Formats: sequence, C-alpha cells, structure tokens
Amino acid sequence: MTILKSMRNCHFINQKIAEKLNEVTIRSMWKNVNNDKSESIDLTLGNPTALPPPKFIRSLTKILKTKVKPRDFGYMDNAGYERTRKAVASDLIKDQLFVTGLNINHIVMTAGASGAINCILKTILNPGDEVVIFAPYFVDYISYVNNYGGLPVIVDLDRNDWGINFASLEKAINKKTKAVIINSPHNPTGHVMSEKEIRTLHKILRNQSKKYGRPIYIISDEVYREIIYPPKKFFSPATDYNDSFIVYSYSKSLNIPGERIGYIALNPKINHAAQIFEAIKLAERVLGFTNASGLMQRVLSDVLPFKVDTKRYMAKRNKLARVLSKNGFDYILPDGAFYFLVNIPAGIPDFYTISQNLGLFVVDSKPFGVSGYFRIAYCVTDEVLNKACTLFTKLGEFLSKA
Amino acid sequence: MTILKSMRNCHFINQKIAEKLNEVTIRSMWKNVNNDKSESIDLTLGNPTALPPPKFIRSLTKILKTKVKPRDFGYMDNAGYERTRKAVASDLIKDQLFVTGLNINHIVMTAGASGAINCILKTILNPGDEVVIFAPYFVDYISYVNNYGGLPVIVDLDRNDWGINFASLEKAINKKTKAVIINSPHNPTGHVMSEKEIRTLHKILRNQSKKYGRPIYIISDEVYREIIYPPKKFFSPATDYNDSFIVYSYSKSLNIPGERIGYIALNPKINHAAQIFEAIKLAERVLGFTNASGLMQRVLSDVLPFKVDTKRYMAKRNKLARVLSKNGFDYILPDGAFYFLVNIPAGIPDFYTISQNLGLFVVDSKPFGVSGYFRIAYCVTDEVLNKACTLFTKLGEFLSKA
Repeated sequence: MTILKSMRNCHFINQKIAEKLNEVTIRSMWKNVNNDKSESIDLTLGNPTALPPPKFIRSLTKILKTKVKPRDFGYMDNAGYERTRKAVASDLIKDQLFVTGLNINHIVMTAGASGAINCILKTILNPGDEVVIFAPYFVDYISYVNNYGGLPVIVDLDRNDWGINFASLEKAINKKTKAVIINSPHNPTGHVMSEKEIRTLHKILRNQSKKYGRPIYIISDEVYREIIYPPKKFFSPATDYNDSFIVYSYSKSLNIPGERIGYIALNPKINHAAQIFEAIKLAERVLGFTNASGLMQRVLSDVLPFKVDTKRYMAKRNKLARVLSKNGFDYILPDGAFYFLVNIPAGIPDFYTISQNLGLFVVDSKPFGVSGYFRIAYCVTDEVLNKACTLFTKLGEFLSKA
Repeated sequence: MTILKSMRNCHFINQKIAEKLNEVTIRSMWKNVNNDKSESIDLTLGNPTALPPPKFIRSLTKILKTKVKPRDFGYMDNAGYERTRKAVASDLIKDQLFVTGLNINHIVMTAGASGAINCILKTILNPGDEVVIFAPYFVDYISYVNNYGGLPVIVDLDRNDWGINFASLEKAINKKTKAVIINSPHNPTGHVMSEKEIRTLHKILRNQSKKYGRPIYIISDEVYREIIYPPKKFFSPATDYNDSFIVYSYSKSLNIPGERIGYIALNPKINHAAQIFEAIKLAERVLGFTNASGLMQRVLSDVLPFKVDTKRYMAKRNKLARVLSKNGFDYILPDGAFYFLVNIPAGIPDFYTISQNLGLFVVDSKPFGVSGYFRIAYCVTDEVLNKACTLFTKLGEFLSKA
C-alpha cells in the first residue's frame, strides 16, 4: 500500500479524498479476496448471489422486442417516468406506507439508495448542519454527509440489542441538527426497529424540532425492508412522522446492485412538499445523476409489485446462527437484512490473519464505527454457505485451543 | 412560479439550491413546451430523436438470452468491468488518442459525462480552488464546480468566432487555478477548436502551471467528439498535455442519454496517475454513483468500436443555415455538435413571446452565461426540422415587419 501512503499532504487532489484512500474499507477487503489465489470463501460484500427474478429478465426482453421509438432512450424529467413513479407510489400504498395523499409528485427515481441519500443531503444541508448517524453504520453515510459540508454526529447504538440509546440521542441533538439517518433492517447488525422504538424516536425528534424551531428530518434507508424474519414485522421510521423521506433501492430485492436503481419517497405530509420535490430533482441534475436509468424504470413499471422470498435468507441465517453458537461465537441474533455482527473472540489479536489463512474472508467492524466485531454477509449460495460453516467450525476449534 | 418565489431565505433546504430554483433553465423552457397544448416545435433540449443503432438493441437482446449467472447484475469494481474498460481504451487508441501507455487503469466508467465531471471535480478540488469555464458554457458546469467548494471563473469566448480569447484567459489564471474545462465541439455554439488553438492553450497552461508550481488540469468534455463537419477535424484538447482528463458520454453517439453511460479517461502521462485513478473510483463511490450501469457496460464491450453517421446532422445543419440566413438571422456557422447560437434580432424585446406564439420553442442564451442569443438544438427528425424551417421563415417575415 505504498501508493496510498504517499497520498498524505499531496496538493494535487482533495485532502479528504486523499485521507480516505488510506482507510481500510470493505471494498479493500473484498479486493483482497479477489486477489487471493486459493478457494477462499468471501463473506465481505453485500453482493447478492441470487439471480434477478425471471419476471425481471422477461420484462427487459419484452421491452427490447418492442419497436424502438425516438426518445425511448432519451432524457426525461429528472424525477423519472411518470408511469414508473405511479407504480412505485402504488406499491408503497399497498404496503401501507404513506397511504394518504401519496402521488407521483412525491417520488424521485434515483441511482440506488446511495444516489438517493446524496440527493437528499445535497437538498437539505447547509454547511455546518449536523446529521445524526447511529454506530455501527453503513460506512459511506459519513462521506455522504461530508460531501455537502454537513457534520456527522455519531451516536452509539446500545450494544445489548443494537437498539437506539435514547438518552445518548437526546444529548446529541442541538440547534444545528438537520436530520437523522435510520436504517432498519440494519446493516451491519440486522436489527429491526420495533414500532415502539420508532414511536419513541419520533417523540424525541418532534420535541427537539419544536424546541429549536426547525424541522429535524428522518431519512429512512429501507433497502432491506423486505428482508425481515417472522415474528418481526416491518414498521417504517417514516410512518407518522411528517418531515421524513424513504430511501429505497432495488439492489437487494431484485438482486441488481450493479444497475443502480432506487427512489426517494417524500412523506406526503412533509412541510413544503412541492418545493422539496423540485429541489431534489435539481440536486439529481446538478450532482450529475440527471435521471435514473430509463430502461430500469421501464422494467420497474412492468414488474411492480413483486414479492421477495425471504425464506431462503431465513434458512441461511438459522443455519449460520447454529454453527456460530456451537463454535463459541457471540452475537445478537439478526431479525433482518443478511448480515451477522459477531464479537471478535477476546484475546485473539490476529483474528483476521487466522481467519484468512483458513480462506475465510469477513469484514472488520471498524469501518462501521465500532470496534471488536466482524461482519458476515450471508447473501451467498448454499454451497458457499456450507463451506463457510465448515470453516467457522474449524476457526472455532482453532481459537478454542489458542 | 409562486412556489419558486417563496424559496428565498427558506431555512429548511440548502440556500444555493433554493436560489437556483428561481433561475430560468433549459429544462424549464423544455417543460413549457411539454405543457403547451398546441403542436409546438421543440428545439430546446439536446435530446436526440435518432434511434440507438440496431447493434445496440441486438447486443442487449443477446445478453438477455444468455443464461443469467449469479452476480451478472452484481456490484463490481467502482471503475467498472475490465473488459469494458479494455474496449474503451482500444477505441481511444484507434482514434489516435492517448496511444502510448493507455490501459484499463486509466479508464473509469461513469454515469455519463455529467457523472464523470462531478467525479473529477470531487477528486481534484479543495475548497477555494478555481476552475476556468468559458462563456457561453454548458449550464451545469457552474453547479458542478460549486458542488465541491470550487469557484467558477468565467472567461468570455471571442464573439467573432467563439474561439478562446487568450489574453482574457491569462488574466484569469492565478495560484488558485486548479482546472480548465474545455468542450470541443462546443455546446451551445458548435465551435470546434483547431489544433493551433489547442496548442496555444497548452502553452499558456504549461507556463502558468510552472509559474505557480502546481498542475492546472484540462478537463476535456468530448461528448460531441464524433459530430464534426468536414473539412474540420477533431483534435483533442487532452492530446500532448499530460495533466488532462477526457470526459465522454455515449448519450449523443448511441442516442441513449436516458441510460447514463460514459467514462473518464486519464491521460496516461498525468502526474500521479495511480493515485488519481484510485481517488476517482473513491469519488464515484462516495458521491453515490457506485458504478456505471453494468448492463450498459456489457453492451459497450460488445458494440465498440462503432461509427457515428454525421452526414445526417450535417444535412440538417446546412438546411437550417440556409433558412436562417435567408430570413435575416445572424449566427456563426457551427462546425460540430448539433446546436446553432443565433443573435436575437436587435430591437425585439419580446422575441420569445413572438416565437412561442408561432409554436417555436428555442432556448435563451442567458443560462449559458451570455446575453443576446438563442440556442437551437437541431437533433430532431427531418419532419420536425421542416416544420421548424417553416416557422423560422414565418418568424423572419414577422420580425422584418416589426
């Protein structure tokens, strides 16, 4: 990594980018797997191995068989095609989200959830505004906030259940707080917020908004919305809280993260809805996204609504939970998404070396803002999962003798 | 526009976004056309009416017929697929661009040219850095520079031929100058820079880089590279200038602006090439682009190289030139792209009202940073162009009597 070390104090590029290049990231650990010559087991990235649903491929094929008309592949309104936004709005209403008043003027199609969050933050942040992020967090939230001169304020989640510590949250809020990013089901812990937890959050944010005389927005990143294991149920943090945005991506539900398609849904009761809608479209334009892929939008308007099969993921979670427990690993059972956050066994400073020597690649929790854990992404085939379980057993045996 | 007027001094969104919402833009004039009930002729947006080449559709269809494998639609390296970047590099070499040393580690696939420029500016700008932009300019360049705390420095092009006024350029450069954005063929004038003009530019930038002891980058936006009319030939501003980037989009050459696919090519001789490559990939990630559409990348690696038929555009330009001249409109004949920048006839303050009453929609030059002109985008069907010519004749007649 000598290239990266030489980046400090270089004047030719952005200083923050230069510093960030020195950090160990999930992507760089993924890179290590790919450079590894052996038959290693890669549980680093949330890159689904499942195929896109046949419906998706059928729809794309059908579109291509239709005679192409001028501007079928042309520019469109920055928010996206009306018929796609209509399909998305109907889908949200069907899921009991934003039932009242939701229409196409609350939906902006985006380049996935990462594009969506960037457009929202570009829209709402003035330099110096603070955004609350709960740790552990999705790594790039910090960068997204920094992109627009915002200041990320980190609030640790409760290590006993990965729920919100409300006392810590209240302490973190002040007159500069502009937004809170929520991610339920949660990456990297798999925690799913209960309705009660969410209603407590709302109460605090409402009180604080009132106190400081300005809205505190909820940005609800719901990319894992469908991946929830019974008896847990999904309750959106954007329900019954007016100043909120839903952020969604089809990366996980349609298994197409490489295609970058998702959306922003404004709560129809958000204050200044019309202005915020226009501002987000402008942000989408000036950040260079322009619009989400027209082709993907056309497919969506065709395949929506569709159901995600979570049984497959639940079986994988259950199997992995059994193997981890049996081999002495500590973790809080995830209720959703496709991750485990597991305690690094105490007194094993060279845990990753041992694990990687066995051919088992997982991600350290440090980039997520907490120390002492590793993350497993189990969105892998059964074959890979079986091999992973064998390796976790070997690893457990090895560590028990260490 | 009462909604937009109420945006001044609102605290709930970003101030610059709020101010920008008040501006008249190309998009808003486009909106007017679309809201117009009559049979209006729309020459506002550079939205090609030509179809994507049959090769493009065939390639997509072929990909969809192939059995889908896991991760065919998955995440990839932020720079994009290696085989696509290889095809792009070969294509550039074939065009005599960057012949020496160009390889996949100089190519980053992006969401069109707008995504590409944003990634470059995020990478190279520190707050307060200045970027030279020539007026008239592509409207969003200003926003792109502002996005990263950069300061756009506007240098007027010579109104006699839309070439660079080198004395003005030299005056505009100082120790804070980080980059110069060049767009040849040029939107909105259609000017194509000659080799001589480019070599003079290089000489000045090299001297100034030396004087201030830091690189002044050339960002060469080459989205109209293929659309050049003989005897003019393309010479890239990134040729023989080491600290340069080529920015390209397939929007115009494949007629797919809605699909957002393009690339950044680093000059292989750029200083710190490896670090800049890594930094741009990081920018692509943290800005939320993550990667350019995997599907579009797969198509590109299949359809490259392809030839753009510019005869079609040249015939349209020639026809329009004849009609404009005959009817008393003043303009400098464009050598490339698909735009005319035409003088607004003197003494006609209500030009746009008159024109729009006839059903003829063109764009005012003010958003491009110059006053007194209107822009025609002639990337339209022959049918639309014929109607437009009839309307320009009517307009000319009307104005001659005014």
